[in-house]
Amino acid sequence: ASEPASFDILTSVSSLSVDDRSLQTQIDELALFSDAPAPSVTRVLYTDKDVSARRYIKNLMKLAGLSIREDAVGNIFGQWDGHETQLAGVATGSHIDAIPYSGKFDGVVGVLGAIEAINVLKRSGFKPKRSLEVVMFTSEEPTRFGISCLGSRLMAGSEALEKALQQTVDSQNVSFLDASRSAGYMRDHDDLSSVRMKKGSYSAFVELHIEQGPILEAEGVSIGIVTAIAAPASIKVDFEGNGGHAGAVLMPYRNDAGLAAAELALAVEEHVLETGSIDTVGTVGVIDLHPRAINSIPSKSHLEIDTRDIDEMRRNSVVEKIHQSAVAIAKKRSVILSGFEIVNQDPPALADETIIRAMEAASQQLNLTHRLMISRAYHDSLFMARVSPMGMIFIPCYKGYSHKPEEYASAEDIANGIKVLALTLAKLSLY
Amino acid sequence: ASEPASFDILTSVSSLSVDDRSLQTQIDELALFSDAPAPSVTRVLYTDKDVSARRYIKNLMKLAGLSIREDAVGNIFGQWDGHETQLAGVATGSHIDAIPYSGKFDGVVGVLGAIEAINVLKRSGFKPKRSLEVVMFTSEEPTRFGISCLGSRLMAGSEALEKALQQTVDSQNVSFLDASRSAGYMRDHDDLSSVRMKKGSYSAFVELHIEQGPILEAEGVSIGIVTAIAAPASIKVDFEGNGGHAGAVLMPYRNDAGLAAAELALAVEEHVLETGSIDTVGTVGVIDLHPRAINSIPSKSHLEIDTRDIDEMRRNSVVEKIHQSAVAIAKKRSVILSGFEIVNQDPPALADETIIRAMEAASQQLNLTHRLMISRAYHDSLFMARVSPMGMIFIPCYKGYSHKPEEYASAEDIANGIKVLALTLAKLSLY
Ligand SMILES: [Mn+2]
Ligand SMILES: [Mn+2]
Ligand SMILES: [Mn+2]
Ligand SMILES: [Mn+2]
Repeated sequence: ASEPASFDILTSVSSLSVDDRSLQTQIDELALFSDAPAPSVTRVLYTDKDVSARRYIKNLMKLAGLSIREDAVGNIFGQWDGHETQLAGVATGSHIDAIPYSGKFDGVVGVLGAIEAINVLKRSGFKPKRSLEVVMFTSEEPTRFGISCLGSRLMAGSEALEKALQQTVDSQNVSFLDASRSAGYMRDHDDLSSVRMKKGSYSAFVELHIEQGPILEAEGVSIGIVTAIAAPASIKVDFEGNGGHAGAVLMPYRNDAGLAAAELALAVEEHVLETGSIDTVGTVGVIDLHPRAINSIPSKSHLEIDTRDIDEMRRNSVVEKIHQSAVAIAKKRSVILSGFEIVNQDPPALADETIIRAMEAASQQLNLTHRLMISRAYHDSLFMARVSPMGMIFIPCYKGYSHKPEEYASAEDIANGIKVLALTLAKLSLY
Repeated sequence: ASEPASFDILTSVSSLSVDDRSLQTQIDELALFSDAPAPSVTRVLYTDKDVSARRYIKNLMKLAGLSIREDAVGNIFGQWDGHETQLAGVATGSHIDAIPYSGKFDGVVGVLGAIEAINVLKRSGFKPKRSLEVVMFTSEEPTRFGISCLGSRLMAGSEALEKALQQTVDSQNVSFLDASRSAGYMRDHDDLSSVRMKKGSYSAFVELHIEQGPILEAEGVSIGIVTAIAAPASIKVDFEGNGGHAGAVLMPYRNDAGLAAAELALAVEEHVLETGSIDTVGTVGVIDLHPRAINSIPSKSHLEIDTRDIDEMRRNSVVEKIHQSAVAIAKKRSVILSGFEIVNQDPPALADETIIRAMEAASQQLNLTHRLMISRAYHDSLFMARVSPMGMIFIPCYKGYSHKPEEYASAEDIANGIKVLALTLAKLSLY
């Protein structure tokens, strides 16, 4: 008796209705779990605010009738059993952690939207064949431990990360393991390898996300269908000099670690621009000086650098040039290049053809304008692609703003994204 | 009956003996009042450690038999009455606050050394004619409120500072007034104008200090006699851009406040070097980026710049060029120059001829090599010079290091400095 309903939805998409009001309330309420004053959001892994927000998400999953499971690092799974539970499931999800002083849509739209997509399908009378699963990933943002997509990297089986996390500490010298335990994870017998996901556990993984770029808004297009995710790399650099008194040490006798940092920051920009490709980007988001006093020559500097490209080899050559510049600057300024750590240097990911076709078909059926595009930001999808066919749905956001309080997506655009997600999940569930 | 003793000391300098052991213990003990682990010292205005250190100093003053007085902001005075109390006194002193991760000699030698100089004179049987006064100045370092020589500026009668301090807050938004109260100062009826010192209250002010430069050590000279203090200026600069996601915002659409800061830091160095004078120095000790996340384009940056010269006009022209560069960089990078505040821009100070001669004569009598020199670091003496004839005694320090944990002066060099100080005070007391 359940079969007809399953097929109905694919012919009668008008039955898909998003509860706009509840969703807006949820977005606003989730934003209150923040360590920065509104409209800024700061929600960092395993802090009290993160733990409260996780409780909020699990409650919504429960209200949606999902059965909930958490793994050793706090990836949260909410499952709606299909009628063929022996088949690999179809998963969707994103993250809710937020970098300091950012906004309330990045990641959140793909978690709250995934739960609402389940509600949409339930309200429409749809019954899944393959199980549908909502995933909330742990620490997509690198804020606390310098590791981006921590949860999905572990799910994708990064043994290097499993090993590194035994030693990893945050800037306050709190270890990953202690922080994790204080949030209720990594209990006595938990093992990081238990987070690994078998390849083939999911037949598809789809992530809904704001574009974080200006294209959809500028072109007036409702839905972006991601074909590839650019390859990210991140680097930490440390310089050391002799420091000294800002008045007493004359210019020829200085080796200023702060000026070395300033030069390297400008060199990053130069190397990115000299590829000549619009697709290469590079950013120095962190420059820390020590002792950080107006009347003291910096004796230490620390930079954190992010560079990405859709072309992995070109991206790697930028990383190499940044290294060469760091060495040359250190030599020229007689400072020591005391650290040059490539924290991660990931390949790009391609979206799965079948999922792309399902998302295109869903957009068409819903009468929504859509286009293929590249994701320049990375996402947990970059790592899910290692263990599952992957696809991403983008929606427009105001001026392309992200990672700042002005980040915004309209209720209508979010609802459109959720409908496309719901219909795509339905199709993939029956596939 | 006391007169002969007073004159004895000037003919028999062998009676001047420094208690090396106690002094070293005091230097080491004072360094324990620190918010950084040894050998680093961090002692910031009105913190618990500062309050404890003040108590320690007052106790030493008491043991030396001085009568103690504190003013509304915590400048501490310990007086040894001369037998002609109607005459203006002779003062000596320095500071004990320490910038983050600095050493244990800067300022401290001039406070502990001043108290020991009093002990030396007392042990020798000397009786002052003019009263001798030891001063411990509040906040010579600008660490907490961005204002250097806070105590001596107020003593010198800076009405602009009295006014500004009503509004001044630290980086944690704690007001100067609240911080001051929490340390036991600025009580209900205290008025900042009460800190002002009448010109002529002192007939002389002499400060003992480590050189904070390499000259005395390199030349093997024991005593530096300061003829002038270089003119310091400090500037705070803020840039603002649109920030955004490090992956999603393509390079042509960026206005990166962090790169503007990096360019300005290098421009400061350039403008300093292009004066062609060894006496011009400039330092960017602080660069703060916001939101300070590896995957976020800096939307705000903050710089703190220090520049000094023995030539005031040349120093002012460097400040002007830094301003022009800040404007040009903001324009070029489409960021907003949201702040360019010249926090202070002080003239240089000349030492008093009579005091210089007294210091020279003292060095000669003590058989210590000595030379005239310029102080490139500023000191409370820069402001005391506005209300009193001023002089400074420098002693060698290891490699010229200062404002870092490696800062060091030998017990012998310190003892030499204290003897010259004691004898100079004795001469000036009788003058
Ligand atoms: Mn993000
Ligand atoms: Mn995201
Ligand atoms: Mn100092
Ligand atoms: Mn000093």
